Order: sequence, then structure tokens, then C-alpha cells
Amino acid sequence: MRRLQPEISQTADAPATSRRFRGERRDAAGQTTPLLAQAVAEERAVEIRLNGLSQAVMMASPTDFEDFATGFAFTEGLIEDPADILSLTLRHEALGSVIDILAPMIEAEASTRALSGRSGCGLCGVRSLEDAMRCTADVTPQPAIDAAAIQAAVQALADHQPLNRETRAVHAAAWVARDGRIQAVREDVGRHNALDKLIGHLLRTQLDRHDGFLLITSRCSYEMAQKAAKADVGTLVAVSAPTALALTLAREVGLTLVAVARADSHILFTSPEK
Amino acid sequence: MRRLQPEISQTADAPATSRRFRGERRDAAGQTTPLLAQAVAEERAVEIRLNGLSQAVMMASPTDFEDFATGFAFTEGLIEDPADILSLTLRHEALGSVIDILAPMIEAEASTRALSGRSGCGLCGVRSLEDAMRCTADVTPQPAIDAAAIQAAVQALADHQPLNRETRAVHAAAWVARDGRIQAVREDVGRHNALDKLIGHLLRTQLDRHDGFLLITSRCSYEMAQKAAKADVGTLVAVSAPTALALTLAREVGLTLVAVARADSHILFTSPEK
Repeated sequence: MRRLQPEISQTADAPATSRRFRGERRDAAGQTTPLLAQAVAEERAVEIRLNGLSQAVMMASPTDFEDFATGFAFTEGLIEDPADILSLTLRHEALGSVIDILAPMIEAEASTRALSGRSGCGLCGVRSLEDAMRCTADVTPQPAIDAAAIQAAVQALADHQPLNRETRAVHAAAWVARDGRIQAVREDVGRHNALDKLIGHLLRTQLDRHDGFLLITSRCSYEMAQKAAKADVGTLVAVSAPTALALTLAREVGLTLVAVARADSHILFTSPEK
Repeated sequence: MRRLQPEISQTADAPATSRRFRGERRDAAGQTTPLLAQAVAEERAVEIRLNGLSQAVMMASPTDFEDFATGFAFTEGLIEDPADILSLTLRHEALGSVIDILAPMIEAEASTRALSGRSGCGLCGVRSLEDAMRCTADVTPQPAIDAAAIQAAVQALADHQPLNRETRAVHAAAWVARDGRIQAVREDVGRHNALDKLIGHLLRTQLDRHDGFLLITSRCSYEMAQKAAKADVGTLVAVSAPTALALTLAREVGLTLVAVARADSHILFTSPEK
């Protein structure tokens, strides 16, 4: 089979997060303007291994690899406790990057999933409708977040997205303190990856996940709500709209879901209409 | 393991594409407005089987199931020729929908992938960096599309997205004639799914894929370019930005990639800067 050979040579250095391309802007009047160095987000195949067994290959922004691997392994239920991770090894190859996690596996998961090949869409490696619809434990009840704190965070978020400012092509997931101050942001071409990176960061730094909220720049689909609930966060705020299944899950596990979050308003979703 | 039980009963009827939820709009002044019936996009687990073997479970908008299965099986290389499909059987269950495809399998693919569980992110089921970076054959060279035709299609697209107009949460992929007239549109909560549905539709209706272009409402990542090239379409137009890897692939296989496509301008990307 023919393979694409991206222009990154085998190296121990971290790959760049963007590249510059030539282009040509064409407008309605038929005018063309050459663009000599348009910044474009890099995208890289990232393989996550657990104890030497391939668990997933995802297309991701080449940043925060350790956070990504930690968050993915935890939210996807491959490891029980991130504190169990013995080592994380990162290797950059020509075709992509490989992260090896050394950790005790969750028995049932590891043996059946080890060869399944998973990916960044949040549903990877599942083999049945039953697996797809898996539900987490209830989230720990927490006091409501003030509307003003949510709006302040949404307004401030763009300033914390350097890669998106450069490329206009990447999502972000942020951890925000209860008062609306943004404490950490992770960016990625994939929205699931951005959230996994952020959750991995929270787990690795032991930030208090019970005193703040998650803010994501994307829509809130089922898997995003699933990951937030798995991380036992009380409130998930999405800049764009939710899906019905995400709302059903949120209600089921007690996750507060806020969506269509703009600087001047947002929608708090509660129980579905009868 | 606990499972989410969505509020759809086992039925032979097609599930609804949206549901109405209660919510509460909160604005910057602290005012709250009850929303009694906010339309939210439905999302449903869809399992695709090939000759009885599970190939993928994806979260998708419950529309155009046959197009979806056909497009996915083709762009993911599970079947060689959609004309080979002997039957498509659709069954709606409580937890999701199952589509069974009966068709001759591509030998090497079918045996190794049959149990891998794939998903809608475009990279599912791959087990190695090599698989992730697979490259299609070159696309058939075609005359350039006029800038005016692209701009006309972008301007007209919103009128062809009924589910998005209702829910603001779904992507679209359109097939557009060379003169800019939109000929078919498919919608989905997942951008890969929307493109697979559209390609499935093109394959099933035998529309001429060499005389027009693909228009997608999303960013253009690697897998989107991969799917377009696999369908042997000459030009892919994305409303949002591309990734570097998508541009590298497009150049490699001769796919014309247009991005940041707005009603009044767009960017034609050619070769990367040296």
C-alpha cells in the first residue's frame, strides 16, 4: 500500500505545531492575492501504547504528548489511576509519534482492546452498541457556577489559544476556576484530543477538579460529556451546541451542561422536555 | 458496566433527527429566560457490519443510513466497488442502529479489521502509524473550478442544511456541479460522517464525480482529504482551515484543495513553501 511520507524527518526533537504554505486568495471580484506564508496547523499521527501494546492511533496536534496519553488512557478507561503510571516514553518517528505508557492495566479492558486500534473521536475501539453507550459513575455534586464566571472565561479564552490565533484551525479545552479565571488550556486539531490533553494535565498536576469547570470551544457531543463525567468534573461549558445524547448522559450522571456559551449569554440545559 | 439507556425504544421506525429540551438562557445582566423547547440534534450509535462482522461503531446523526454505510465502507477501503454490495439491512435497536452490508470483502482488509471496531473520526481501526498514513491513488486530473462557482455554492449552502438550521450543531458535505449549483447535501453531527454519507450518495446514484466538487462546512484535516481523494474527486472546498498534513496529501495525490471558503473569498492552496 502506498504511504504518505510527510516532510518531517526522524528526529528526537518535538515536531513543529504549524507550517507555512503558499496559497492564493481569490475574491468575489475575481482578484487574486498571493499568500506567501499562510500558517497552517500541523497534524501528526500519534500512537498510544500501553505496556507495549498499541491502543490507538490518532491524528493530533503535536503538543503536550504526556498530557494527551495520560488523559486518553484515563478517560477511555485503559488505566484506573494516573498515579499508577510508571513511565511515559515519547518517540518521534518520520510517520508520527509513539507514546509508551507503562502502567498496570485494567484487566478486562486491556486484553480485549489491546489490538483494537482506537482513535481520537471518542468512540474508538468499541465493538458493540453496548460499549458505545457506556455510562460513567455519577459525578460528585458541586455548587453551581455563576453565570458571570462562565461569561468571563468565554470572553478571555481567545487570549489563551496561541495556536488557534496563528492557524484558525484548532480547538481548545480549558480548566477554569470557580471565579472565572482560566487556569490551564490545551489546544488540538481534534476536540476530543484537546479535552483529553487538558484532563491529562489536571490529573498530572493534581489540580482540584471539584472547584471549577471545563470550557470547550467545540460542540458538546456524547463523548465530550462522557470524558468530563469520567474526570468527575461538575460542570461542562461548550461554546457551541450540545447533542441530545450528551444532554441525556449529563442528566443521568448529574453533570451540569452549559452550551452555546458566548461572552454575553449562554444556555443552561437541565432536564429534557417531557 | 453501567450503560446509558437513551429514550428511544426499540422500533422499526427511523429515529428522530432532533429532540427538544428545556433550558434557560442567562445573559450578562444576570437575566434568565426560560427556553421551553430548544431544538437539539439527535446523536445515535451506529454499528456498521460487513458480512455479519462488526467493522465500526460511530456516533452519527440518524439519517441516510444506507449512504453512510456505503460511503464509509468505500472510503475506508472495506469494499472495492459499491456495485458489489448485494444487500444493505438496517435495524433500529434501543441502544442504536445496525447496518449490515453483504458484499465481497477486500481480502487483506476484512480479515484483519473485522473485529477492530472503527469509528467516525477517519482513523479508526488502524493499528500502526503506517496504516494511519496510507495514501490513495492519484486523483484523475480535472479542469480547475471557477472561483465564482465556489463562492456561489458557499453562499447557497446554508439553505440546504435544514437540520443545522434547526439545531446549529451539525456539519454538512455537499456535491456541487462545476457551475456552482448544489446537487446533493448530507448532514451529520460528525464531519467525517457527513462526507461519507455524501460520497455514499454519489456512489449509489452514479453521479459524475469528475464534473464538480466537494464542499464541506468543517475544517479540512487529513482524513477529509483522504476520503475525497479515495472518491477520486478533483477539488475539495472547506469552509474552514486546512491542516498541514491535508495539504501535503492533497499535493501528493493531485487533489485541489480550497479552504477558508467564504461567500466573498477563499484560499486556493497549492504547493507548500520550500
